[in-house]
Amino acid sequence: MPLSGPFPSPGPDASTGDRRQALATRFQKARARTAELVATLTPEDLMVQTVPDGAPAKWHLAHTSWLFEVAVLIPFSPGYRPCDPAFLDLFGTRGDLHPAPPRIVSRPGAAEIMRHRDQINAAVLHLIDQIDDGLWDEAESALAMTIAHERRHQERMLLHIKHAFWSNPLRPAYEPVPDHLHLGAPPDGWLEQPGGLVEVGRPEPLPGFDHEGPRHRVWLEPYRLAARPVTCGEFLDFIEAGGYGDRKLWLSDGWEVARAEGWMAPLYWERSGSGSGGASGSGWQIFTLYGMQPFDPGEPVCHVSWYEADAYARWAGKRLPLEAEWETVAACCDSMGNLLGSGHRHPRAGTCHGTGPWQMCGDVWEWTADAFTLYPGYRRPDGPDEAVNGRLASNRMVLRGGSCLTPFDHAGPWTRHCLRPETRLSMTGFRLAEDGI
Amino acid sequence: MPLSGPFPSPGPDASTGDRRQALATRFQKARARTAELVATLTPEDLMVQTVPDGAPAKWHLAHTSWLFEVAVLIPFSPGYRPCDPAFLDLFGTRGDLHPAPPRIVSRPGAAEIMRHRDQINAAVLHLIDQIDDGLWDEAESALAMTIAHERRHQERMLLHIKHAFWSNPLRPAYEPVPDHLHLGAPPDGWLEQPGGLVEVGRPEPLPGFDHEGPRHRVWLEPYRLAARPVTCGEFLDFIEAGGYGDRKLWLSDGWEVARAEGWMAPLYWERSGSGSGGASGSGWQIFTLYGMQPFDPGEPVCHVSWYEADAYARWAGKRLPLEAEWETVAACCDSMGNLLGSGHRHPRAGTCHGTGPWQMCGDVWEWTADAFTLYPGYRRPDGPDEAVNGRLASNRMVLRGGSCLTPFDHAGPWTRHCLRPETRLSMTGFRLAEDGI
Amino acid sequence: MPLSGPFPSPGPDASTGDRRQALATRFQKARARTAELVATLTPEDLMVQTVPDGAPAKWHLAHTSWLFEVAVLIPFSPGYRPCDPAFLDLFGTRGDLHPAPPRIVSRPGAAEIMRHRDQINAAVLHLIDQIDDGLWDEAESALAMTIAHERRHQERMLLHIKHAFWSNPLRPAYEPVPDHLHLGAPPDGWLEQPGGLVEVGRPEPLPGFDHEGPRHRVWLEPYRLAARPVTCGEFLDFIEAGGYGDRKLWLSDGWEVARAEGWMAPLYWERSGSGSGGASGSGWQIFTLYGMQPFDPGEPVCHVSWYEADAYARWAGKRLPLEAEWETVAACCDSMGNLLGSGHRHPRAGTCHGTGPWQMCGDVWEWTADAFTLYPGYRRPDGPDEAVNGRLASNRMVLRGGSCLTPFDHAGPWTRHCLRPETRLSMTGFRLAEDGI
Amino acid sequence: MPLSGPFPSPGPDASTGDRRQALATRFQKARARTAELVATLTPEDLMVQTVPDGAPAKWHLAHTSWLFEVAVLIPFSPGYRPCDPAFLDLFGTRGDLHPAPPRIVSRPGAAEIMRHRDQINAAVLHLIDQIDDGLWDEAESALAMTIAHERRHQERMLLHIKHAFWSNPLRPAYEPVPDHLHLGAPPDGWLEQPGGLVEVGRPEPLPGFDHEGPRHRVWLEPYRLAARPVTCGEFLDFIEAGGYGDRKLWLSDGWEVARAEGWMAPLYWERSGSGSGGASGSGWQIFTLYGMQPFDPGEPVCHVSWYEADAYARWAGKRLPLEAEWETVAACCDSMGNLLGSGHRHPRAGTCHGTGPWQMCGDVWEWTADAFTLYPGYRRPDGPDEAVNGRLASNRMVLRGGSCLTPFDHAGPWTRHCLRPETRLSMTGFRLAEDGI
Repeated sequence: MPLSGPFPSPGPDASTGDRRQALATRFQKARARTAELVATLTPEDLMVQTVPDGAPAKWHLAHTSWLFEVAVLIPFSPGYRPCDPAFLDLFGTRGDLHPAPPRIVSRPGAAEIMRHRDQINAAVLHLIDQIDDGLWDEAESALAMTIAHERRHQERMLLHIKHAFWSNPLRPAYEPVPDHLHLGAPPDGWLEQPGGLVEVGRPEPLPGFDHEGPRHRVWLEPYRLAARPVTCGEFLDFIEAGGYGDRKLWLSDGWEVARAEGWMAPLYWERSGSGSGGASGSGWQIFTLYGMQPFDPGEPVCHVSWYEADAYARWAGKRLPLEAEWETVAACCDSMGNLLGSGHRHPRAGTCHGTGPWQMCGDVWEWTADAFTLYPGYRRPDGPDEAVNGRLASNRMVLRGGSCLTPFDHAGPWTRHCLRPETRLSMTGFRLAEDGI
Repeated sequence: MPLSGPFPSPGPDASTGDRRQALATRFQKARARTAELVATLTPEDLMVQTVPDGAPAKWHLAHTSWLFEVAVLIPFSPGYRPCDPAFLDLFGTRGDLHPAPPRIVSRPGAAEIMRHRDQINAAVLHLIDQIDDGLWDEAESALAMTIAHERRHQERMLLHIKHAFWSNPLRPAYEPVPDHLHLGAPPDGWLEQPGGLVEVGRPEPLPGFDHEGPRHRVWLEPYRLAARPVTCGEFLDFIEAGGYGDRKLWLSDGWEVARAEGWMAPLYWERSGSGSGGASGSGWQIFTLYGMQPFDPGEPVCHVSWYEADAYARWAGKRLPLEAEWETVAACCDSMGNLLGSGHRHPRAGTCHGTGPWQMCGDVWEWTADAFTLYPGYRRPDGPDEAVNGRLASNRMVLRGGSCLTPFDHAGPWTRHCLRPETRLSMTGFRLAEDGI
Repeated sequence: MPLSGPFPSPGPDASTGDRRQALATRFQKARARTAELVATLTPEDLMVQTVPDGAPAKWHLAHTSWLFEVAVLIPFSPGYRPCDPAFLDLFGTRGDLHPAPPRIVSRPGAAEIMRHRDQINAAVLHLIDQIDDGLWDEAESALAMTIAHERRHQERMLLHIKHAFWSNPLRPAYEPVPDHLHLGAPPDGWLEQPGGLVEVGRPEPLPGFDHEGPRHRVWLEPYRLAARPVTCGEFLDFIEAGGYGDRKLWLSDGWEVARAEGWMAPLYWERSGSGSGGASGSGWQIFTLYGMQPFDPGEPVCHVSWYEADAYARWAGKRLPLEAEWETVAACCDSMGNLLGSGHRHPRAGTCHGTGPWQMCGDVWEWTADAFTLYPGYRRPDGPDEAVNGRLASNRMVLRGGSCLTPFDHAGPWTRHCLRPETRLSMTGFRLAEDGI
Repeated sequence: MPLSGPFPSPGPDASTGDRRQALATRFQKARARTAELVATLTPEDLMVQTVPDGAPAKWHLAHTSWLFEVAVLIPFSPGYRPCDPAFLDLFGTRGDLHPAPPRIVSRPGAAEIMRHRDQINAAVLHLIDQIDDGLWDEAESALAMTIAHERRHQERMLLHIKHAFWSNPLRPAYEPVPDHLHLGAPPDGWLEQPGGLVEVGRPEPLPGFDHEGPRHRVWLEPYRLAARPVTCGEFLDFIEAGGYGDRKLWLSDGWEVARAEGWMAPLYWERSGSGSGGASGSGWQIFTLYGMQPFDPGEPVCHVSWYEADAYARWAGKRLPLEAEWETVAACCDSMGNLLGSGHRHPRAGTCHGTGPWQMCGDVWEWTADAFTLYPGYRRPDGPDEAVNGRLASNRMVLRGGSCLTPFDHAGPWTRHCLRPETRLSMTGFRLAEDGI
């Protein structure tokens, strides 16, 4: 499900040359990052798909090239001849009339896919350099959209790789664990907020996705927002207090899915054979991109569904924040956590100075209390259906911030992510809120 | 899915005697209405279930009695002995541990079920009359909840009966069509609203369900609300303009369900063999509780999913109203349509005087733009899980008003109904809104 | 799935008048028996369907009339006008192109269905009396087929009624238990058979179904056939010896279905709350058309799949008989058990004199070792597809004899019944065989 | 589904040294053949599984080693230490209690799997050389079973590879097409057979599987057997005559599966975009291990289900042969076709001299008229459940001969293969028979 949108950077007032240069750089960085993310994998690793609606990494590698070919090179490069026409058929998205091609194919092999990526890279850079000024604006917009698409797939690809490695009984690691992973959690605390009539939504000149605007006014009562996300240690208290078995804590749909799927802990948590746990969480391990890792009570809890976040909040006597509450705080501070570029591919407990808020944009996506609906005044943008995020506005809850697998320019105070409330595949955590006085 | 809640009536200040009298009257009316609704049916009619998660009418008749037995008679009548213990096991709700009993059973027969209803009626009236004053408050609350439950099942039972009759190839009628069914639609028009900081949610002394409060403030921009619901004739324009086939009008989930289920028109609309329609809708018929009926362009459109309402609004260049927008208008006027007591068991086009709004509470439930979430400050009430509507707050959209099958005291400006966006079984229509200036 | 075939009776040499008279009598008896079988049921009882591919009794009542209308009255009665054209559409079989009409409909009601049966009865008798001699042969053949169809449905209807009553938590009885139900089993024993080159298959002048012929030769080695079917007491030994949990006793497909469905005993066997059983079977009850009944160790075991029969035989160190072995014995003796006309609607243990064999044709259908394939020289008969039993010749095992629910003229030494090996709905038991010397 | 059985070769009278030598040679040949079959594949090719109950080639490579480890090395090599304990858990078969490990894993990689195969090979050869004479008989039997298992997997692995390549839209070829693939079909003709009392079943000293014996007598009427299998050209006549749409030609179960799955031709047949076919089959192509190949009317038809073979025979006015009829002819002649060792990995049309029969053992497995049941006197062998073929004796039809993918020592006059009648994955064809005079 490729979410994507326009991210023009130096702004329309910049010279065309500067804008070309900036875009070429962004393009190269995005493409290089994708390649870097699979550098530790074997061709066989790239073939595995274990998430039903997911894809093997090789497909992500090829599919992102595919969009550059169909949305940039073919429309804007006169006389462009596809490197290999078969790639056009093999790596597109599902249409309404034709079934999608299978996503697991051994041929073309990984080496061919990477060679094809190189060809696309050269062709796109050539186009950026050579395209007529008259076509530039339109091409820039298409390039911004396709680069955003490449970026989005980086996070999805890592989620699919993580699940695939976890599905292998050997539990291999995607990469070695970096040094100093384990820190203490930031101090607990609450940020008092007066509420009132606030403005939310992405401010206009900033780049972003269609569903993040337009800016509009919302009334908020006084509230308090937690200074940091809920930690694994806190969530373990909920488990040990019987939270998964207490029907009164759960919404009706959540209770049904939790029972049907036998949820007893977040996804990727595993109880070790012996040992009975206790507050320190000895007895639990967590599967990460570094393989199975010891339980760290200070880490933000991750891979919980919205239902689990909602049940935890009810158990704790608090609630999830409204997205406008979250955004009002996030927009006034610079509360970053680990993002994709940080090299930490698992949420970290990070000791921090000051009063917070901490880790708002990074480490874990944060579930909010809001269902995903379109902002007042929303207008559907032109362009391919896949580039319109607004079409997802049903049966999904809003998440804010960004995770340790989110590219830098896809995380921020106005970023709106949305997922079905039952999903646990993504790096989803949450922070609490409560009514103020 | 028995939604229910407390509806005490004369208020806590009234004398106990008055309150007993009032409740006895409400109880008798509710029970009599249920019996009246099946008066035209044969015992065999009462056996049919065609909605997968639905129930045959006989089950509704017995299940409502069951709740009076377990939630009122057994707790509050000392020494009460169940009329027939088998009824306690046969007609309860699904628990977590035990599978639900089958809902289609030939024995006990309809006559026994009705006799059992009479026994319950007598026992409840006796209890209302005889119960100690010290227990009255608690009993009154339980009775209010169980009467509301009976009321809720009236609407559901009629929806299930309608579907069952429609599933019979003979398309029998539930009752004969009443006179003067076909009127003209009210005039088209828009109500200008200034918006601003408004208060919404059920005002405290008024009776209602848990999820309809607490009252709270919401900011609204200026807006305009349609004076009447969208009509069948208007919706036919959407069909004939190809609305069901234009992907850009639909949300992603809606498009998938519409295609998977082959939606080409609202539920119960059927194209006649010959004739090609046209603006008058000749060529279409609509199945109703009166059997197949000619297409009436002035009727409010009904049995559309939220996705269809949303797609229509997008096609029309408008939007669905926010529930706060809807409520603000409804609370300031007395815009009733046909409810269950009116004897019209299908939405009517009703010519009206004045400027509207028309038919806000009645004829059709009206989809809003909002997903169903809990109001700020919501506290989960005590009591059986089935009486807590708040536990449904995910994956559902809010509907407002009430339908021609809704009991009088379950429809009003503050009534909040919620359904999954794909459902078309209920009497669901909608009215449009747009941004003001 | 209506199996049917031609059963002409007095033979082609008889006078037309005699043959008309004989057929009229057979027709009346068959129709009266069907009506008699539902005499104890309420209209609501006739509405229940609990077997996924089954039908409510009302459908059987109407569907059998339907076939007389389409296969006899319409083709052979010039100018015949259907009593009610709606019945033609409502009660037919599934075609390839159109979905079948629903089998559960409240209208027409039971009274109308029975009235329609009377009209059909009168029309058919009139046709038998009045039809031209020139058309007689063809009409006689169609009548024989449709009467056989009525007969077949009697057994199926009772199986469906039994399952429906069992599915009701109240476990009502279809009819009161008759006197002297419980007798001792016939003595155990073996019939020595020399084998050799034998002729099997229905001898030509005898009436029967297409797949029961032609007669042909088969080589048999010497063998021994059990004098009576395996009893409930013997089968209980298998259960108590752990037969359901010993994988080596089971065929691969059988093991999978037994585990998937949690088989621990034959269908309709239920272990009482307390008591641990023992050889007498105290601790078990069996649901019958007489309601729950005490365990009778001498009764033939019933409602076992072929897999269970096969596993039992392996456990006992014996085997199931070949159908040719079974038939060779059955054709040389007159070993009847209870059939539909006997009024015993459950297999009986019947003390017998002599050396047996006992109960070959009656009480329980007997599974054989043979898969159902077509006899050498089989030719597919003309006529409607539904009248061709040979089209079922895959994935089914052969059963022989007849059960206590089988009409008299559908049970005998040459009767071949076939069912999928996993089915347990029918009155299926078995007798053992072993190699001779 | 690993079918396997004992194939001791030089016979029990040979010296132990000779028998060791013979078995070592057979072991080495079998293992080398498996490795040779994947020599043209990339590690990514070895990862693809497209048949729901199938496996990727890498799993076959590892699983066959696994059985040598658990059934030979661990029991018979004192002090044997598994090369890598993880392989024992990863590549076993599904047990009853534990779910099977996933069959698609990227790690261990193909290189590790092949290295592990080499280690197993060395260990097994060492064991054959060193084992005590006193243990030899038992070890020889276990080795014979595990070698047969390896052989069986060769055919299955190729079937899975073929399906995986066909599922790739590029339709790559497994290997280049060999020269002179296309010959003419052998002449049509019939072999007259007198029938009578014949002996069938594998003669005792010959090696083979449990379900191929014991030898026993069967009575056959005179019959005629086709000299060669039905060809693609002949089967095309059936298609063009509308055979797939004529319900009367099909058994009931076959008709349902054919319609549900939209069968219009054998599996792997594809109609080219243009061209309308005709007797020459222009307009059709067939996917093979050599990629898409032109239609060759003289090739034996392949990849048809039993239902299609049965429908064709009925259409042609013939029938499928009984397995005893087939075996009686095959046992008296030396009618070989292409087997795995021939290097032709697709059925060939092979012009032949003489009167036939041709291609009985090779090119295509041949469906017979018989359901798979156990021979009279069959006794279940000891040993692991997986080595018992008799446990498959339900819901399957018998095939005889062998295919172009069958190892040499698994094809012959007494070979009995069995498959579900709806399967089309295997190299299944058929020859006709008819009654003689």
